Amino acid sequence: MSQKNEFDLIRDYFAPLAKDSGALGLQDDAALYSPTVGHELVLTTDTIIEGVHYLPDTQPDKIAAKLFGVNISDLAAKGATPKACLLNFAPHKNVSEDWIAAFAQQVEVALSTYHIQLLGGDTVAAPDKAMFSLTLMGEVATGGMIQRAGAKIGDDIFVTGTIGHGFIGLEDAKAGRLSPCRDLFEHPQPPLDFALAAAPYMSAAVDVSDGLLADLWHVCDASVCGMQIDMTAIPFADPAYEDLMTQLNGGDDYQLAFTAPSENHGKLKQFAADQSIQLTKIGHIINRSELVLQDSNGATLKILPTETSSVLKSGFSHFGIKK
Amino acid sequence: MSQKNEFDLIRDYFAPLAKDSGALGLQDDAALYSPTVGHELVLTTDTIIEGVHYLPDTQPDKIAAKLFGVNISDLAAKGATPKACLLNFAPHKNVSEDWIAAFAQQVEVALSTYHIQLLGGDTVAAPDKAMFSLTLMGEVATGGMIQRAGAKIGDDIFVTGTIGHGFIGLEDAKAGRLSPCRDLFEHPQPPLDFALAAAPYMSAAVDVSDGLLADLWHVCDASVCGMQIDMTAIPFADPAYEDLMTQLNGGDDYQLAFTAPSENHGKLKQFAADQSIQLTKIGHIINRSELVLQDSNGATLKILPTETSSVLKSGFSHFGIKK
Repeated sequence: MSQKNEFDLIRDYFAPLAKDSGALGLQDDAALYSPTVGHELVLTTDTIIEGVHYLPDTQPDKIAAKLFGVNISDLAAKGATPKACLLNFAPHKNVSEDWIAAFAQQVEVALSTYHIQLLGGDTVAAPDKAMFSLTLMGEVATGGMIQRAGAKIGDDIFVTGTIGHGFIGLEDAKAGRLSPCRDLFEHPQPPLDFALAAAPYMSAAVDVSDGLLADLWHVCDASVCGMQIDMTAIPFADPAYEDLMTQLNGGDDYQLAFTAPSENHGKLKQFAADQSIQLTKIGHIINRSELVLQDSNGATLKILPTETSSVLKSGFSHFGIKK
Repeated sequence: MSQKNEFDLIRDYFAPLAKDSGALGLQDDAALYSPTVGHELVLTTDTIIEGVHYLPDTQPDKIAAKLFGVNISDLAAKGATPKACLLNFAPHKNVSEDWIAAFAQQVEVALSTYHIQLLGGDTVAAPDKAMFSLTLMGEVATGGMIQRAGAKIGDDIFVTGTIGHGFIGLEDAKAGRLSPCRDLFEHPQPPLDFALAAAPYMSAAVDVSDGLLADLWHVCDASVCGMQIDMTAIPFADPAYEDLMTQLNGGDDYQLAFTAPSENHGKLKQFAADQSIQLTKIGHIINRSELVLQDSNGATLKILPTETSSVLKSGFSHFGIKK
């Protein structure tokens, strides 16, 4: 790492970001947090590793943006307001001070954008691959967290934004191409404000990280139901891109997929318009534990629960569903 | 990693440990926690990396024991009762399933010993060095956290257990020797129950992780005071060991160093006896921002604040204080 030791780095780059008194100036081994009365905490944590979750040459600001994006996306899917975080910061031991300054600057942007307090963490030098974990703490009014198990037969299924920009963005980043998909891949924009406003009108929700169908299947699994998806309705990031199933199952989109009774559709559309969020109805919940796809050729495929896992993993390619 | 993917590993090894309903069976991306009314949360997180914080050949149960020990030690120094944790689990991608089972088994022991709920985390395969972070959440009655800034002029300075077993234990581990010091190095035993009982009678506290004098100096710094330490009183793990200063400054002891008014001494001795904890008075707080050492030869050394940092780092060797 730079000439400075970890105490110096914390003092110079992270302590100025930790303005809440509970952070104790980041000079202590622990932090203090006073939960809001009548609220529960929603906790999430995600780790990203160099070469696994981001390409080795990724700039520090993009790494910090990704780290916050993936964690905020988890809270958005719970209808939880982000409040405070702890950062496990393990950059490569040889990074420059400029690298650390750029990372910290993007952390400041995220803290300020989402009104999150940095309460603590730790700083170590990684001997090989850099690794970063963020633990993010949010709040919901007691009993107000959106569960995965809340989907009801007949509920509509919605998705925000576009699907497939995560996968296309990764391809663009690998090829060194600039593109809006790459921007979204490197700097995820989970629809937090929409989620917080619309949460009371959703029955179940999940964020799109593993792939739209795989993530929605978690909701079906927890809710003991199935789903029928209209493939022609999916808001693909690039409908002209050769392999729609790869876009569909690529993941890393950090949009919100959720279920809601039809009578809430108008209200949800209003919240989406208020936040300039694209909202698309893509299917509905069915009472059999099946995944029913109406593909773009108008054909219907039924996939039984025993097949679901392998089908989702293989991206449906053996069903020949390609554009 | 093994043939199983991360979802299989979580289901088979970690989900059975996550018994609290707020963990949502570890099948969700987030967890729910309801704080006790009238209490504040105390949060801490520490990362340990293969080859940095533990030797590469360390057995998985020792790694898990260390991970919990260092974090519980931080809460003990705050007088906070551990409640819940999130685990960022990044073993090397090629570890066996037996390795993971042994790690998880020690996690279960720690959860059960300290009455901690496992609420969530994430599991990734580390491409190179393994890395583990634990975020530990404890509670104190509102306003009841022990601060570092609470030391008062004239307060006595105490330490629990022995000092230097961390350093000697590391040397023993490197040499492949079994010893009680190595046991304590690999399986830290922070005096949590003593700390929780005695907390109301302490004015300031810190856990011994960086080295006794360096850690106590953080208390002096925060409390705007100095300290006089009687070197002959320090409970060295091995008084016959050649270099006492290395024992003193080695760190990794995970004992508690704290200050308290003299009138509390009787009460503190009683709590220590109740918990079979060794408790030693090693000095007192002075009004000048100086570190005054009475060495084992009866000589007195005064170190001024401007010198403290470099002196603590260099282990006093240039003062010639060796046994």
